[in-house]
Amino acid sequence: MTLEEQKTLAAAWFKNLRDQICAEFEKIEAEAGGSDTFKRTLWSRAEGGGGEMSMMKGRVFEKVGVNISTVHGEFSETMRKEIPGATENSKFWASGISLVAHMCSPLVPAVHMNTRFIALGNERSAECGVRNAEESISHSALRIPHFWFGGGADLTPMFPVEQDTADFHAALKAACDASDPGYYEKFKKWCDEYFFLKHRNEPRGVGGIFYDYVHSGDWQNDFAFTQNVGKTFLEIYPQLVRRHRAEKWTPEQREWQLVKRGRYVEFNLLYDRGTKFGLMTGGNTEAILMSLPPEVRWP
Amino acid sequence: MTLEEQKTLAAAWFKNLRDQICAEFEKIEAEAGGSDTFKRTLWSRAEGGGGEMSMMKGRVFEKVGVNISTVHGEFSETMRKEIPGATENSKFWASGISLVAHMCSPLVPAVHMNTRFIALGNERSAECGVRNAEESISHSALRIPHFWFGGGADLTPMFPVEQDTADFHAALKAACDASDPGYYEKFKKWCDEYFFLKHRNEPRGVGGIFYDYVHSGDWQNDFAFTQNVGKTFLEIYPQLVRRHRAEKWTPEQREWQLVKRGRYVEFNLLYDRGTKFGLMTGGNTEAILMSLPPEVRWP
Repeated sequence: MTLEEQKTLAAAWFKNLRDQICAEFEKIEAEAGGSDTFKRTLWSRAEGGGGEMSMMKGRVFEKVGVNISTVHGEFSETMRKEIPGATENSKFWASGISLVAHMCSPLVPAVHMNTRFIALGNERSAECGVRNAEESISHSALRIPHFWFGGGADLTPMFPVEQDTADFHAALKAACDASDPGYYEKFKKWCDEYFFLKHRNEPRGVGGIFYDYVHSGDWQNDFAFTQNVGKTFLEIYPQLVRRHRAEKWTPEQREWQLVKRGRYVEFNLLYDRGTKFGLMTGGNTEAILMSLPPEVRWP
Repeated sequence: MTLEEQKTLAAAWFKNLRDQICAEFEKIEAEAGGSDTFKRTLWSRAEGGGGEMSMMKGRVFEKVGVNISTVHGEFSETMRKEIPGATENSKFWASGISLVAHMCSPLVPAVHMNTRFIALGNERSAECGVRNAEESISHSALRIPHFWFGGGADLTPMFPVEQDTADFHAALKAACDASDPGYYEKFKKWCDEYFFLKHRNEPRGVGGIFYDYVHSGDWQNDFAFTQNVGKTFLEIYPQLVRRHRAEKWTPEQREWQLVKRGRYVEFNLLYDRGTKFGLMTGGNTEAILMSLPPEVRWP
């Protein structure tokens, strides 16, 4: 398979997953007696490519954004210093899906899921396809491949429930194990390290998995893994929503939800690579900041 | 005067200004029939120094924080790369006052004011005093002095009123002109450039002044300028609050205020040097993030 064919398949999968997720979330709204549906907005990027935002505000989902995008272009000077491998390869191609859900009930966890396929390279390698999976770029101690999968999913309950956390992790572990017995431990740890607010010395939520530079040499297996992460999310998260959506909550619980959301904002704007990457590469501001919660307090 | 004496005077002034501002803001609350006062919290920093937060939540001021701090220590590796002059001088001493007010009424502008005195230098120069004002450190094209004043004040109305903007700028211009006829134009421009949200291509508010590295060679004049900025703020801002506090507002105006506050959060977490400097130097997180608005929406 050429890299071009791989790009086409990856982008098609992200779109298909988007459709499945939106349908399932609309079903949850309908079950709660709501009739809200996702509103779609297309956007394009001057330099190349674009995306589609899907946003729903309902009675279960206070604000949920599901974005897909497929963009390409050239890294700016600043970006080249920040992205491993970008010093030698100024051109990039990236396609992915990104989802953040902020829930009406403080007893239903917020969630984030994102998977992506990225290819770096100047005309020859990127546009004609890399013939050999071992063709990679050395960068510091790492060897960064020309193309790779990245992503993850993590849960942010306002009031963590042990069973939810266990079920969420078990589902992701199964998805990991299907591809590589070493993945789960590694990607869970990466998630814990990544979604951590240093300035508060506290984790953003109860974790999940975070992976990047997945490029085993077997593209089919890597693609299957990223597909599995998406399918697993689609199976486990709706279970957690349905488990808690009808529980009554107090104004104090709602207040804590709004405060906890402030930490979410702090993480996204202070630390999140996706947010920085997006804003620095001239991505769509509305799409990137769709992850911010609808209502927040810093009392 | 030795640098040590200058540090003492500067720190004493910031504390005195804090007291004057808090008294005036409490008076405004009292005029509106409120009885809320500032709550003070001392904090100290493991590496050296500390500060005092003053926070009030009232019926005019929804959330106002007035912080003073005097800290010293050594820059981390990361900081040295970011701060001009810090590569050659890893030690710093900094004292200042920082204020952010978020108002109950969407018709009363939010405001920010900050002034500071900073000294860099290793033991010999910083702790024994720099004898000659011309002793400065060359860094790229700039020459960064061993010690300097910085600060500014800027206004963020949700619904800009021409007269308010004109009065605010005229007051700051007078404070600038008293020290140097070139200051206002330079510092107004710097403010417009600094308080700009690149990702939205919009200014944070209607500006004011922003200055840094003020070190004319005449310390008394530089100190007088920074004192003047504080006094001017204390004179003009309460006028604007009293001008608008009794005006009726609509729920739509309140909604826009909450959305506009989201931009304020974006600026502070994505761009603000003070926030980054504070969080990176192990400053007090609560004090640094006291600038964040009490209630915000990203609809």
